Amino acid sequence: MATEIAEQPEVWRRSVASLGRLAPVVAALKRKQPRFVLLAARGTSDHAALYAKYLFEVIHGMPVGLASPSTVTAYGSTPDLRDTLLIAVSQSGQSPDLIEMVQTGRRHGAITLSVTNAPASPLAQAAELHIDVLAGEERAVAATKSYTAQLLALYLLVDLLRDGDGSALGALPAAGDALVARSEDVRALAARYQFASRLVVTGRGYAYPTAREGALKLMETCYLSAQAFSGADLLHGPLAMVTSQVPVLAVAPDGVGGQSMGEVLQRLHAVGAHVLTIGGAQAIAASSAGLQLPAGIDEAVSPLLEILPLQQLALHLAITRGENPDIPRGLSKITKTL
Amino acid sequence: MATEIAEQPEVWRRSVASLGRLAPVVAALKRKQPRFVLLAARGTSDHAALYAKYLFEVIHGMPVGLASPSTVTAYGSTPDLRDTLLIAVSQSGQSPDLIEMVQTGRRHGAITLSVTNAPASPLAQAAELHIDVLAGEERAVAATKSYTAQLLALYLLVDLLRDGDGSALGALPAAGDALVARSEDVRALAARYQFASRLVVTGRGYAYPTAREGALKLMETCYLSAQAFSGADLLHGPLAMVTSQVPVLAVAPDGVGGQSMGEVLQRLHAVGAHVLTIGGAQAIAASSAGLQLPAGIDEAVSPLLEILPLQQLALHLAITRGENPDIPRGLSKITKTL
Repeated sequence: MATEIAEQPEVWRRSVASLGRLAPVVAALKRKQPRFVLLAARGTSDHAALYAKYLFEVIHGMPVGLASPSTVTAYGSTPDLRDTLLIAVSQSGQSPDLIEMVQTGRRHGAITLSVTNAPASPLAQAAELHIDVLAGEERAVAATKSYTAQLLALYLLVDLLRDGDGSALGALPAAGDALVARSEDVRALAARYQFASRLVVTGRGYAYPTAREGALKLMETCYLSAQAFSGADLLHGPLAMVTSQVPVLAVAPDGVGGQSMGEVLQRLHAVGAHVLTIGGAQAIAASSAGLQLPAGIDEAVSPLLEILPLQQLALHLAITRGENPDIPRGLSKITKTL
Repeated sequence: MATEIAEQPEVWRRSVASLGRLAPVVAALKRKQPRFVLLAARGTSDHAALYAKYLFEVIHGMPVGLASPSTVTAYGSTPDLRDTLLIAVSQSGQSPDLIEMVQTGRRHGAITLSVTNAPASPLAQAAELHIDVLAGEERAVAATKSYTAQLLALYLLVDLLRDGDGSALGALPAAGDALVARSEDVRALAARYQFASRLVVTGRGYAYPTAREGALKLMETCYLSAQAFSGADLLHGPLAMVTSQVPVLAVAPDGVGGQSMGEVLQRLHAVGAHVLTIGGAQAIAASSAGLQLPAGIDEAVSPLLEILPLQQLALHLAITRGENPDIPRGLSKITKTL
């Protein structure tokens, strides 16, 4: 897991260098002009899908839904998906429910696209269009490099669709290197949470998928109850269970999403919560502890960076707690759900 | 809270008796023929929105998305919502982000519908169409009767749109009375969880919104970390943190959704988890404990029943733990997020 975390900036460089592989997908989508986007995914890939939801909504103003595969696989609904772009995101491309969702969608008019790390997988074969995220073989059960490779591929797709050239990604690999190098700082921070049995992770806008994915990593490797909420949703109820004994991890990068976390940080402070913020200087100043992200990164691609310290936290905290993050109990690398 | 929980079957009778109030909404939607549905909501209402997502997908085969209001309110995106039905669900109709989302949607071509318990509220005024859920004044901070009133109104809408007459709801109020009368059974079950600091709630398909809402009630009144997962998502990672010391509440009514929980219950059994199932006899037989739902209810309306024991559990568990469920700390009845 440590090796794959550290590899990520290199994966990003490789993916940006092969920008051309997206050309046929972009050309097909420009020709077909979808009006609605449906994203289907599970687990870590579902957080990449959630990131893509924000990208399509903010940048293209398209209404986006996250598919509930059971409506097709269990309830047998026959969706009308004309003018709909159905994107299935999966590291392995093996999950039967996603394959069936894509096959059904294709029969019912959807433009189907799979985004996988396995171009020969059944999911990649089932969809009309495919993007390889180029993460290379991922061996750790807890997905890390395949996640940011998915984010990158989805950002490239959305950017190329508006005739961009991925230039917001230029500064990213170097910033990633700088964060990877801070692993020891994260290890020091991790000690603080050795005895926690539950925690809350929160972020808003583009940073909300990061909160979700960070929480999943902590559940998978440290067996904590890690609950993720968008900053707004946290205030609509769950805030009641946050006390000084429930640590909060906040993701608040510079930009609109981070700024909108200001009220959330205030409310957390008011209930005496301990808050560790991964983000910009201003948000960190309003928190108990912080890990600052490199400045000058476009908020829309910041999720690739934000997750790195959370992956490292999951790794170091697992080790501190005597767990082996490379062999999470009860999980296998490929999960097949029907 | 206890009074409002018990009042629910009466609310349902009243709502079904005023079926006619939906006629103008149904007529307008039949005329305008939307092709996509976007739902916008927060907190408890967001779980009613999630229920409506399953209804529209399964019954009408329409692609449905849950809106991320921050894309409009924080990022200022200008969505193209022609042919899109935007439904905002809110008890109070007061949340500024939902009001802005509806106003923006209306300017950008959406057919806008609000579903509230407050027909004079700004949200009800902002939308072109409105459905009053007729729950009557709700005084407890933890929403109960307004939630099932929202579910009922949304089911009626979907059923009338397929020229139904709400007949699946016929047996519901009596079944609700029977469940309300079992409050003492739930109190006895609640004692088991007095010392738990975290638990997991799971369900699939139509029962997944119930799992989410049940978890929220437990967080709001008992200050537990209550994490809700769809059965499929639970197997994609979070299962790692479930042990014999983390109780699981499973919602598995008779029907397709409950059946598809079979594998999930097996996996939970394999890791030694304690599982309390609210559902049908077969699922309960595969669990550590159970509370059986009245038989013969259409799965599509079963969520109105399933939530009753979970509301009662939240109430009794809070009292057992020395908390006052009528005054949850840190919350107010109307939450305004931007």
